[in-house]
Parts: sequence; structure tokens; C-alpha cells
Amino acid sequence: MLKLFYAVGTCALASHIALEEAGASYETVRLDFRTNAQRQPDYLAINPKGRVPALVTDRGILTETPAILGFVAQTFPQARLAPLDEPFAFAQVQAFNSYLCSTVHVAHAHRVRGYRWVDADDDAALAAMRRKVPQSVAECFELIEREMFAGPWVLGKDYTVCDPYLFTLARWLQADGVDSARFPKVNGHLGRMSERPAVKRALEQESSPESSPAA
Amino acid sequence: MLKLFYAVGTCALASHIALEEAGASYETVRLDFRTNAQRQPDYLAINPKGRVPALVTDRGILTETPAILGFVAQTFPQARLAPLDEPFAFAQVQAFNSYLCSTVHVAHAHRVRGYRWVDADDDAALAAMRRKVPQSVAECFELIEREMFAGPWVLGKDYTVCDPYLFTLARWLQADGVDSARFPKVNGHLGRMSERPAVKRALEQESSPESSPAA
Repeated sequence: MLKLFYAVGTCALASHIALEEAGASYETVRLDFRTNAQRQPDYLAINPKGRVPALVTDRGILTETPAILGFVAQTFPQARLAPLDEPFAFAQVQAFNSYLCSTVHVAHAHRVRGYRWVDADDDAALAAMRRKVPQSVAECFELIEREMFAGPWVLGKDYTVCDPYLFTLARWLQADGVDSARFPKVNGHLGRMSERPAVKRALEQESSPESSPAA
Repeated sequence: MLKLFYAVGTCALASHIALEEAGASYETVRLDFRTNAQRQPDYLAINPKGRVPALVTDRGILTETPAILGFVAQTFPQARLAPLDEPFAFAQVQAFNSYLCSTVHVAHAHRVRGYRWVDADDDAALAAMRRKVPQSVAECFELIEREMFAGPWVLGKDYTVCDPYLFTLARWLQADGVDSARFPKVNGHLGRMSERPAVKRALEQESSPESSPAA
């Protein structure tokens, strides 16, 4: 059975929602980032990067949100989570998700994970990074709003694995100091996503105390 | 015909090599980053992100290296640039390329593009970012060397679109202050890649003055 390693409040939510949308049989393992569970040897044996998500499959372990989302879409074709028969259309899915992981998530990460890119004790540089986040994150969402979001779903009339990923990152806007109301399409999408049963199930599971048997 | 927008010394080289490996019919347009060509209206109409690569196809325009590489592999299946029939194996390709775009390229970008994440006139913060690059980039390649690189190609015996992408980023190691000799597998891969005719053709084209008709 598929097994998803995740932590609350992380981008792993996108993969979690996709598994729910796909109707997949899977279990979850919650890592507690407060105790640095993602850096402990037992988890590093699963994902040497020390990050989430990681998806254990019967073929091996997958990491990286765009890869996991593409895998879920291809493995559960009946769920129609991506256009699988058209290389160009599938690449559009990958392009959007690649932008989210390489630019949007990275802009956000400078708020609390700046130590990845400057010395961890350089308080001035870390503060300089935090100060820029509302601007850099807002610029990403302005581009999404203006150039990428087709509506009602990210790529148009069909829901795809781009949708849970955008939803996951858009939920961070408030904490990043950006008012999502500035982006009416993205904001409407947040609302529509919140009403989907699969999204509700994933969020409920991540907020329930019982769902963390390990780690 | 496919048309690739690129700039010299950028990650667009990966897509360029992939098109050569695929035997694709394509043309290239070179952008001059020194004149900020990527921020001019004519190019922003092609790629509103103001970045390279961008691949114009008869279906529309694709951006983001992992998406373009996946598209080339799927569009030219006879070139065998990715395992196309196995969702897990294809996801492994995407996972490796996603790591390169979201973590490795980002670590590197803090050397000369730090203004994306702090104010452009914050010289101290920009310098703090530059100082960390040799360490953060080296940590990425240590992980690739130790955990990801199967050999002789990235994913094992079969050459895939992971190979031109790794090659492209590994060529930046020296400028990032990292000695590639620390990573024998990656270093050997650099050498093997340099001998491939497709790689030589792409590099020759990017270094020839005639290949920049526009921009």
C-alpha cells in the first residue's frame, strides 16, 4: 500500500489531497517538525533530503511534490487528475507545478528557512530575507493571477493535480503577509477547493491527533 | 517547428541538449541577458516570467526546464530519453529534475541573483548569500553523489533527460567555488557528457556568434 510521509502545514498537503482525489488506498505517517523528526536517521533512510513529502510505493520511494503529483495522476488514470494522453497538456501541468516548487515555494521559504542560504546566526541577513517575502510572494501570485490561472481550475475546466498544489501554497499567503483578496481568481479557487470532499478529508486527517501513529 | 529561447550560460542548455539528443527539428533564439532582453516586452509576451528557457511549440509555449525535458522525452519516444511506460520510473526522472530546479539551481542562484530574495541595495545581505553558496551548493552535490547518482548515467544504465540537466548545473560548480573533483561520480559524468555529439553540438551552437539572429 502507498504510504505518505508528511508534516502539518507543509507542501505535503498537495500530495495528500491528490491521493484522496484519486481514491487511492494509502496510509499516512505524520512527522513532527518541532522535534526535528525529519532529520532523524529512521526518516533519513526513507528520504535522505530530510524533507517531506515522501511517498513509499511498492516500486520504491518517491520524493518531490511535482513528481509525486504526476505519479498519482498517471497511476490512477480513472481519477482524471491530469491530461495523460497529450504530451503538451501534461507538460503544462508539470510547468505550473515546477513554477510552484522552484519559485513560489522558494520565495515563501525565505521567511522561516533562510538559514538554507545564509549562515544561521546572521540575524541581519535572515531579517532582510523575511522583509522581502511579502513582496516576492505577492509577485508570484500576481503572475499566477494574471498569466497562468485559467479558471475555474488552474488549467481550465478540468481539475488537475495543479489545483491541490496551488491551494496548498495559497494557504500560506496570510502568514507571509499577503492578502489573498488581492488575487480574486486565486482567492475564489481557495474557496472552491475548501469545499471539495477530498480536501476536507485530507485536512481533517492532518488535524486529528490520532493520525500520527509513528514519529 | 519548435523554437527554443535560451541565453548563454543558463539552465536552458539542458533543454537545448535534449532537443539535440532527440533529433528534433528546432530553431533557437538567443537572448542577451547583458542587455536585459529577457525583460523586454517582446519576450515577456512569450514568457511573462522573464526567464529562459521557453519552448514554442505548435500547441503553445512551454516554460520550466523539468516540463520541457519531460515534453521532449514524450514527444520523441524513439530517442528513449525517459522511461515512458512506467509511472514510477517516469516519476523518478521528474523527482530528480525537480530537485535540481527547486533546490540545486536555487542554491546556485543566491550567488548572483540574491536580489530576488532581499532588497537589491542590501549589500550586506547579498554578500551573506554569496558567502554561503559554496557550502549550500556542495551539500546538494554531496547528496546527489551519495544518494541519487546510479551511474554511468544519473538513473542507471539508460541515459535520460536527467543527464543534460545535471550536466548543465554541474558546469556551474567551479564558478560557485566548489571543486567538482570532490564528487567523483558527478565529475566522471561531466566528462562523459562532454564527449556526446549532441552535447558538443548544443555547446557549439551556443558559442557561435551566428546563432543569435534575433534579440
